[in-house]
Amino acid sequence: MSSSLTPAIDQLVRCLRYLPGVGAKTATRMALNLLERDQGRAADLAIAISDALTRVKRCSRCQNFCEAELCSICESPKRDDRVLCVVESPTDVLAIEQTSDYSGRYFVLMGHLSPIDGIGPEDIGVDKLKQLLQESAVSELILATNPTVEGEATAHFIAHIAKDLNIPVSRIAHGIPLGGELGMIDSGTLSHALQGRKPFA
Amino acid sequence: MSSSLTPAIDQLVRCLRYLPGVGAKTATRMALNLLERDQGRAADLAIAISDALTRVKRCSRCQNFCEAELCSICESPKRDDRVLCVVESPTDVLAIEQTSDYSGRYFVLMGHLSPIDGIGPEDIGVDKLKQLLQESAVSELILATNPTVEGEATAHFIAHIAKDLNIPVSRIAHGIPLGGELGMIDSGTLSHALQGRKPFA
Repeated sequence: MSSSLTPAIDQLVRCLRYLPGVGAKTATRMALNLLERDQGRAADLAIAISDALTRVKRCSRCQNFCEAELCSICESPKRDDRVLCVVESPTDVLAIEQTSDYSGRYFVLMGHLSPIDGIGPEDIGVDKLKQLLQESAVSELILATNPTVEGEATAHFIAHIAKDLNIPVSRIAHGIPLGGELGMIDSGTLSHALQGRKPFA
Repeated sequence: MSSSLTPAIDQLVRCLRYLPGVGAKTATRMALNLLERDQGRAADLAIAISDALTRVKRCSRCQNFCEAELCSICESPKRDDRVLCVVESPTDVLAIEQTSDYSGRYFVLMGHLSPIDGIGPEDIGVDKLKQLLQESAVSELILATNPTVEGEATAHFIAHIAKDLNIPVSRIAHGIPLGGELGMIDSGTLSHALQGRKPFA
């Protein structure tokens, strides 16, 4: 007895598994759902994927996703040119934008240094970042790479370059998240929180 | 400050939200992942969706998904023509096939009766099922619709038709799932389990 449907559906299931967090069961459910429900929506999804692949490129200044030469943030005259925030991915830009607390510019590395995967400085655009730092009047470089081993290594690498150019560098704070409980927090975060303590306002 | 990326990515996020169980955050993560990682895979997904939409149709006998006139189960000479199992969707066929316990044929309703949504007997192919029952030598009709209000109503409706044709009808058992604990089971399931009790082997 077969445990598969048709070759076209099997192929669709295989392709849906490329999506993050989607396993065999979820992919099957998604594939059947796309075919069972409104098929117009499935066609829309296929078009949206092709469209995004054709139209979306990298901003020539900050490497973020955009559809023109520059992304909307790099193009905006309202943003503060003196502050530059380095992040790993466009998701991080979205997350920071949603805080409404930052009005500077960004530089999106599109990854992090990872020698084991063969990802060196040139792959994440460090040359471009260096050039940007030399050409523009950045008075603070905020390192907002992830607090992982690779993210920290990337932060150190970039901090070194910025210091050579005499640009002050800061790192976003690591500590107890709001609503977090001390007893539940891992010791790494807790020691960051202790070392990063500030005078009580 | 914008909380969106580019129009093409926004459209992709909107379309990914059609997928079952995918909300705004997951859709954004999926969209960026499709663009950041191997773009060939994203293109493959777009092609797989279009392909499935073009090639997949309904089996002319059992209404299951297939790519030819008949699905692989209807075409197989090894299946028992005397037993017909009525299910709501192709997922249910897959689930039953995976038990390796059933060797009869299927009829896939592609839904259930739901007057409130305007879904009547003709929309789920009850006419076709009736014709199939009249033409073939079915000696047992197994009703495997879901144990929901609509699934039960659909089962009753079909049972009525089969009884008019003097075909014995059975319903799959409802009760405690294997590994389930009595204390955690809802009372509806528990009363089904009690009513459906069998002599201890």
